[in-house]
Amino acid sequence: MKVDFWFSELQSEDVKFGVRVKSHLFTKESKYQKIDIFDTDFFGRVMVLDGCFMITEKDEFLYQEMLSHPAMVSHPDPKNVLIIGGGDGGVAREVLRYPVKSVDLVEIDEEVIAASRLYLPEIAASFNDRRLKVHNMDAFEFVDSNRSYDVILIDSTDPIGFAASLFSDVFYMKAKKILNEQGIIATQSGSPFMNPDFIRKAHRGLKGHFNTIKPYLSFAPTYPSGMWSYIMASNGKIQKHRDFVGRYINNDIYQSCFSLPEFVKKIIEEK
Amino acid sequence: MKVDFWFSELQSEDVKFGVRVKSHLFTKESKYQKIDIFDTDFFGRVMVLDGCFMITEKDEFLYQEMLSHPAMVSHPDPKNVLIIGGGDGGVAREVLRYPVKSVDLVEIDEEVIAASRLYLPEIAASFNDRRLKVHNMDAFEFVDSNRSYDVILIDSTDPIGFAASLFSDVFYMKAKKILNEQGIIATQSGSPFMNPDFIRKAHRGLKGHFNTIKPYLSFAPTYPSGMWSYIMASNGKIQKHRDFVGRYINNDIYQSCFSLPEFVKKIIEEK
Repeated sequence: MKVDFWFSELQSEDVKFGVRVKSHLFTKESKYQKIDIFDTDFFGRVMVLDGCFMITEKDEFLYQEMLSHPAMVSHPDPKNVLIIGGGDGGVAREVLRYPVKSVDLVEIDEEVIAASRLYLPEIAASFNDRRLKVHNMDAFEFVDSNRSYDVILIDSTDPIGFAASLFSDVFYMKAKKILNEQGIIATQSGSPFMNPDFIRKAHRGLKGHFNTIKPYLSFAPTYPSGMWSYIMASNGKIQKHRDFVGRYINNDIYQSCFSLPEFVKKIIEEK
Repeated sequence: MKVDFWFSELQSEDVKFGVRVKSHLFTKESKYQKIDIFDTDFFGRVMVLDGCFMITEKDEFLYQEMLSHPAMVSHPDPKNVLIIGGGDGGVAREVLRYPVKSVDLVEIDEEVIAASRLYLPEIAASFNDRRLKVHNMDAFEFVDSNRSYDVILIDSTDPIGFAASLFSDVFYMKAKKILNEQGIIATQSGSPFMNPDFIRKAHRGLKGHFNTIKPYLSFAPTYPSGMWSYIMASNGKIQKHRDFVGRYINNDIYQSCFSLPEFVKKIIEEK
């Protein structure tokens, strides 16, 4: 018998998305946010931060692949990679599929990593890779370092609260400084359908610092509206240097993800 | 103040999607299904059949455009069109943007049309077009007629209950008979993420009767998983003959919608 026990994300004041829960495996108020892990029949284990779906075992591959691979296959030789956020380990897992030298992962909240290691061990397996180094600090400060990177991936929560600074003009300026000449930065930029301001602002912000800006889309069933956007930016060229076939991405998807529906084009072009 | 009043679709036993309701404008048990119309702040007016979102004013354009235009722009000269289902009038509205001669719309449930005319008058405006003729009967019988069509669009509910026959082998055979030589049939085929059997069976069924089969995808925020699939089939060629730019579709989308994520390809290829 299935119990009437649900977790729902309030995707906006007026929209909610719920999954039936088998058990509530973990809950903790960290210094930064409330972390919950649920076990569900449909989506497997689910990580929720401040009431929002971050990862489900069933659909995490769509987002993780689409944040990581377009940038990784577009760089001529990605050796040093910076991941901002991504404390679950999923984006790192995708990046580590390439012969990279080093991956710095800057996750402000060490409790997210701890929870992922305990309850999402397959996703968090990337933390055992010796090429990965974790930095538990604010990425806004980390990017002041004098390191340099081929690829920077921004896998943060949405631009409200403590993650807001990661979408600011100052942050993009700092990120540019630590990006190599051919370097590529890729960020998630939310749902154009639910939150058009997010992609519009991220697009405008990146345009102020980079010559080439490529917004793109993927499906993401447990994120609001199921339509998720990302932006790649670079002062070099953005073109495919190698093939990668995952569970979502393939060569066709790499081409087609840059095609934007007419209403999304208009959102980005709006002043 | 917002009242805690919600309509939720149970998308599966374990997944639900809810919208906050301002008022319940209409409810009726027709001969075939329960019809409800809700007014909401976020999605505008919403039509629900047997508890499932059919149309919301805010996002209906994505589905209506993507069921209609790929076939309409791919036919050399679409003059006579058959719409199966589509009692809200949205697909007819898209088809009537072309210089067609006649559109037959076969909606089994006249109450759906009546509700749409009353509560979704802008979408239902297509019913006032003199080129459109409504037939309130079972499409499975209608396709025995000796009419012939350039384009057939299947805008039905999912293949359970009274709509199941519209995805049967016999139905595809009948549809083929009334399709002209260059004719194109397009059907919705559900969410590959939530219901992989639907697209797999529709693909296999159509393949038994047509030479060219083109599955494609679009976003659809209020349908399960937000990822929706469609299939075009023909014994002629399927290639673009004209441009159409809507609120969703444009020339880029017409090309890119045929790119399938790896997991969707696998679903279709599975035996």
